[in-house]
Amino acid sequence: MDRQDANLAFMLRYENIAWYEDGEVRVLDRRVYPAKTSFVVCRTHVELAKAITDMVTQSAGPFTAAPMGMALAAWECRDMTAEKQMEYLRNASYTISHARPTTVNRMKIVTEACLPSAKKALAEGKRVDIAIRDFVVEANNMRYAKVGRCAKYLVDMFPDNGTVMTQCFAETILGMMLKECSERGKRIRLFCPETRPYFQGARLTATVCHDMGFDVTVITDNMPAFVMKREKVDVFTCAADAICVDGYVFNKVGTSQIAICANYFGIPTFISGAPDIGHPTHDSVTIEMRDPEFSLQAMGVRTAVEGVKGYYPAFDMTPPHLISGIATDRGMFSPFDLKRYFEGRVDDGILTV
Amino acid sequence: MDRQDANLAFMLRYENIAWYEDGEVRVLDRRVYPAKTSFVVCRTHVELAKAITDMVTQSAGPFTAAPMGMALAAWECRDMTAEKQMEYLRNASYTISHARPTTVNRMKIVTEACLPSAKKALAEGKRVDIAIRDFVVEANNMRYAKVGRCAKYLVDMFPDNGTVMTQCFAETILGMMLKECSERGKRIRLFCPETRPYFQGARLTATVCHDMGFDVTVITDNMPAFVMKREKVDVFTCAADAICVDGYVFNKVGTSQIAICANYFGIPTFISGAPDIGHPTHDSVTIEMRDPEFSLQAMGVRTAVEGVKGYYPAFDMTPPHLISGIATDRGMFSPFDLKRYFEGRVDDGILTV
Repeated sequence: MDRQDANLAFMLRYENIAWYEDGEVRVLDRRVYPAKTSFVVCRTHVELAKAITDMVTQSAGPFTAAPMGMALAAWECRDMTAEKQMEYLRNASYTISHARPTTVNRMKIVTEACLPSAKKALAEGKRVDIAIRDFVVEANNMRYAKVGRCAKYLVDMFPDNGTVMTQCFAETILGMMLKECSERGKRIRLFCPETRPYFQGARLTATVCHDMGFDVTVITDNMPAFVMKREKVDVFTCAADAICVDGYVFNKVGTSQIAICANYFGIPTFISGAPDIGHPTHDSVTIEMRDPEFSLQAMGVRTAVEGVKGYYPAFDMTPPHLISGIATDRGMFSPFDLKRYFEGRVDDGILTV
Repeated sequence: MDRQDANLAFMLRYENIAWYEDGEVRVLDRRVYPAKTSFVVCRTHVELAKAITDMVTQSAGPFTAAPMGMALAAWECRDMTAEKQMEYLRNASYTISHARPTTVNRMKIVTEACLPSAKKALAEGKRVDIAIRDFVVEANNMRYAKVGRCAKYLVDMFPDNGTVMTQCFAETILGMMLKECSERGKRIRLFCPETRPYFQGARLTATVCHDMGFDVTVITDNMPAFVMKREKVDVFTCAADAICVDGYVFNKVGTSQIAICANYFGIPTFISGAPDIGHPTHDSVTIEMRDPEFSLQAMGVRTAVEGVKGYYPAFDMTPPHLISGIATDRGMFSPFDLKRYFEGRVDDGILTV
């Protein structure tokens, strides 16, 4: 399958997020991008799982990297019997999907969808690794289409010549949102909080916005309230790591305080993405507490003296009463009305944004 | 006058903030402290003004550095006639007091108080530079005593074993607050947002807390809301660059969004310091917009690609309805009732915290 399948120019740039080829997966190292474009090469699915744990890729990146890891696992076990290969792949799917606690439930593409592809390839005597990789590419293209629908509903909420604040790196939805704005001739300017401690806003989001020709300003994470008021922000929007069916949203730490401030200033907050049937309520989400030392440095330079403690929750939770709408692929929903999203629909959870 | 006059151990550590001696002022470079303890040496009052503009020292630092700069100006003009010396000093006081727009009104110690000291020394045939320096030390000791009174009213608001969130570097009030807690046996733990882009929270506040034996955790500026909820913060407190008589408070950018979140979670916000009669209303304060490029780096390492804009308001404004109380040297005041602070009192504005 042609790598050019991705339906967006900006996607081509990022498709190297993770790519499987004959026994290795190359993962774009977002920890150093865009200052450096380098790749972490994984030669086993365990190395791939570790790369996800280590934040080599994040946001939607793991949802491409993880199934590419299944192609890698298929390569590792290629000389086993068909039965043993399936067992090996089932174990690998567990390892890979558990690389980060917050996203375990969103790894159906790994735990469920890759396995039937493997089984079918085995039955047809085809290369299992290639079958899985092709499946991942196809699933990605379907995901792009789905995200594109979310973007249309989201962009409806932007005024012309509006000012939009984002948070962290919304990846596919960010690109689709900007593409949608461009196609409609809707000029917006963007403010991106830098998103400590990894600087995804400064490093990734701002780069995509600038690449796509938008006026983009990076602010530090203590500036959103000031900017909302002074620069007359019209809309706050971000994607989510988990949208629970009860309307609670988990996203990069900082989202909730921006939403609180937006609410205070009368600015609407729109979250884009599909609700996750795997999270009927917010109680089912575990917030990942990462290495506290990481908050005691910036871009690799230590900030605090020895003896001072660090603290690092990867995500936070925004309650539905602070959210003006969820821009899904099936329309704009009230966060209190997400059950309706699933009514009369076949669950395509593997394509969750 | 003995440099040991400062009435606090922690003050001794910081008294080197700025010190005048025979034609030079050494200013502790807070931009690199505590990683490095180095001093910027100023040999003219113009160099000293530039050091303040360049943020070599900040928080209360400039209120010692600036009058020490007047001692330096006195040295520069020592061979002029008495009349010319006074003219030189008046011009120098303008230059130094205008080094940063936000604090112009708080520089009375420079624009008013140093000049009578100089005049008196000239009349008595004493060294003007030494007279000014001694006056600065005396004024500082009076300020320490005044800040100590603020700290008593502030610490009354802390529960035993409480959790306190700060913002930026409250300097003298921080040390006095911790000293007061220690003396009363009130154990508190502290959370310090790192305070981008200069990291004063991580570099300065956390160091003082740790030095004085307190449990202190540095968080990034996108974490206050999460920490307030998860860690059950009891009180948010900070000092201020300007407390207007109408109850609006100007402090390091980020203060207002922490206050908004504290209000959302039902956590009180206490500001310490004296209201500034020079700012009857918030309209009289100019918020300093600093070099926007500075927000595109962290600890000297570039974060965003070329073409992305930066943004850097040094301060923000917190309205009185978000403030639970102002801990002044004359008691705890409602932010709506600050006129009463001045009733029946002689203005000692030069000692403004």
